[in-house]
Amino acid sequence: MTTLPSDLAYVPFVSVENMMALVHHLGVERMLCELADVIEEDFRRWELFDKTPRVASHSDVGVIELMPTSDGDKYGFKYVNGHPKNTKEGLQTVTAFGVLAEVDTGYPLLLTEMTLLTALRTAATSAMAARHLMPKDARTMAMIGNGAQAEFQCLAFKAICGVDTVRLYDIDPAATDKAARNLAGRGLSVVSCRSGEEAMEGAGIITTCTADKQYATILTDNMIGSGVHINAIGGDCPGKTELHRDILTRSDIFVEYPPQTRIEGEIQQLDPDHEVTELWQVITGQVPGRTGDRQITLFDSVGFAIEDFSALKYVHQKVRDTGHYVMLDMIADPDDPRDLFGMLARSQ
Amino acid sequence: MTTLPSDLAYVPFVSVENMMALVHHLGVERMLCELADVIEEDFRRWELFDKTPRVASHSDVGVIELMPTSDGDKYGFKYVNGHPKNTKEGLQTVTAFGVLAEVDTGYPLLLTEMTLLTALRTAATSAMAARHLMPKDARTMAMIGNGAQAEFQCLAFKAICGVDTVRLYDIDPAATDKAARNLAGRGLSVVSCRSGEEAMEGAGIITTCTADKQYATILTDNMIGSGVHINAIGGDCPGKTELHRDILTRSDIFVEYPPQTRIEGEIQQLDPDHEVTELWQVITGQVPGRTGDRQITLFDSVGFAIEDFSALKYVHQKVRDTGHYVMLDMIADPDDPRDLFGMLARSQ
Repeated sequence: MTTLPSDLAYVPFVSVENMMALVHHLGVERMLCELADVIEEDFRRWELFDKTPRVASHSDVGVIELMPTSDGDKYGFKYVNGHPKNTKEGLQTVTAFGVLAEVDTGYPLLLTEMTLLTALRTAATSAMAARHLMPKDARTMAMIGNGAQAEFQCLAFKAICGVDTVRLYDIDPAATDKAARNLAGRGLSVVSCRSGEEAMEGAGIITTCTADKQYATILTDNMIGSGVHINAIGGDCPGKTELHRDILTRSDIFVEYPPQTRIEGEIQQLDPDHEVTELWQVITGQVPGRTGDRQITLFDSVGFAIEDFSALKYVHQKVRDTGHYVMLDMIADPDDPRDLFGMLARSQ
Repeated sequence: MTTLPSDLAYVPFVSVENMMALVHHLGVERMLCELADVIEEDFRRWELFDKTPRVASHSDVGVIELMPTSDGDKYGFKYVNGHPKNTKEGLQTVTAFGVLAEVDTGYPLLLTEMTLLTALRTAATSAMAARHLMPKDARTMAMIGNGAQAEFQCLAFKAICGVDTVRLYDIDPAATDKAARNLAGRGLSVVSCRSGEEAMEGAGIITTCTADKQYATILTDNMIGSGVHINAIGGDCPGKTELHRDILTRSDIFVEYPPQTRIEGEIQQLDPDHEVTELWQVITGQVPGRTGDRQITLFDSVGFAIEDFSALKYVHQKVRDTGHYVMLDMIADPDDPRDLFGMLARSQ
């Protein structure tokens, strides 16, 4: 009788190093485009997913969340933290990993880093939403908040929405310098700005992505002209918002999953019955997205489990094709499934 | 600038192979005893834990669950499936893995297999509860259901409660043979029985641990004499129970976390306001456990996240002492935390 684990005992694992290799192998813009497409496909199937607001464990300094969902065939979840104070300690604000599993057996199919993958899927989701909501002729995006997510947003809007100019602003000029440096030579016209107002000049798309809880009004009402699309990423937990309330009441608001967005998004500032549109209904054509040139559209994005599910499925397929994984001995799988103790005893 | 991940990017991982090595290094009975002690310690601190019923995703053939909890210092969660039909396909009914993390940073501290660890912590919890509830002079245990959990239960009751005789019964005699074989030479008198009634003879402790949903009444009322302690493990999801309702109404019932047990445990058969006692209150001395020789005590155990948390903390400490782990490159940790894209770009 063998004591070696069977093939079923092994789970493919994608390390940070392998994820980076996969991104380079595919090309970051191609990967953003393909992620946008698989996420949009799953938004079209929205109704058949098991949906639940994420399961959050809050502390004074941050939050740890589990984000599960299932389409009945596969199950996925992401572990993700949010600790704004981490940056000052040399740590990431957000780190993540995730698992894809087979519903029929409950066995994991994939374990993967998701810090990078979350940055990619967040940018892909933003741009996917924008292609349904933005003014058609917009080619300039204001990028407010130049932290870890900024370059991914800029490249996703270039690749997916045809943006050719990004106007960067951050309260810390060093962050803007970092983003400008990283975006150099990637086919975008990059303008570093000294104020939010300056960044907004000529921008048909405004993306806000700031991390710190203490700067709670990144955009004020007078900064926002008519006809723009606002892509609000940073307001993503209770007590953390980026937009002044008056902007919200002037906008048509689109969200991922209302029960979660009402707790975590910009709309936590509004009445619980304030009208919002679910993005999946725009994508399936059930309700209109942008209806006029002067309309302000606002994607109040907090990130939803289905986006991670799509990304997990995508990576699962891509790493099988490219070999960017190792096998982990993570599941005890004795020859006789009832003989777990025997497997243990024989391993001595 | 380096593109290598920092130490923070690595998470200690305990594979199935390393978990087996750790068990052998410590000795299975010692590990069961120490687990019982750390679980009991955390039951004493019950009130300070973040508690939530597990987050379950049900399908026709099984369930996938996430079980998170936190004591404010550490955070832990377990991924676990339950698929009774898996056994027939040569797969485990229950597989699991888990993560321990630092609340202050949100960074994972440990990723570990938990199929074996769950078997160990379940047995340790059962015996820990029994040492507060069982008749003092009980030395014989009936073990009904001789699947993957059976040997762990028998050894935990030997090591922790002083049981010297186990009477095995399973509807499948091959399972009983397997358990008897595995328990041979481990200091227990092992009796293989042909019926549940036969297994019950002289037993002061009765443990039920069956997996299949279709055998819903493992114990009937006439089988249970006065004064025994019943350790009911197998009734652990909606629609799955093992004991006849009449046994429940004759027993004093002790549970882990009532909001979860009312959904998943034996007491799902009873009114939602049927009186039960929380085990932690017995352990802290707030309410009495066993009060008389003729009393039937019933531990209606479904498994709770705090038990996994205790086990994760224990393994985290033990593998650091013994080296039974490898480091996984699971967390993207760039030198400048805002420069995730730069880390990616420089890795090419």
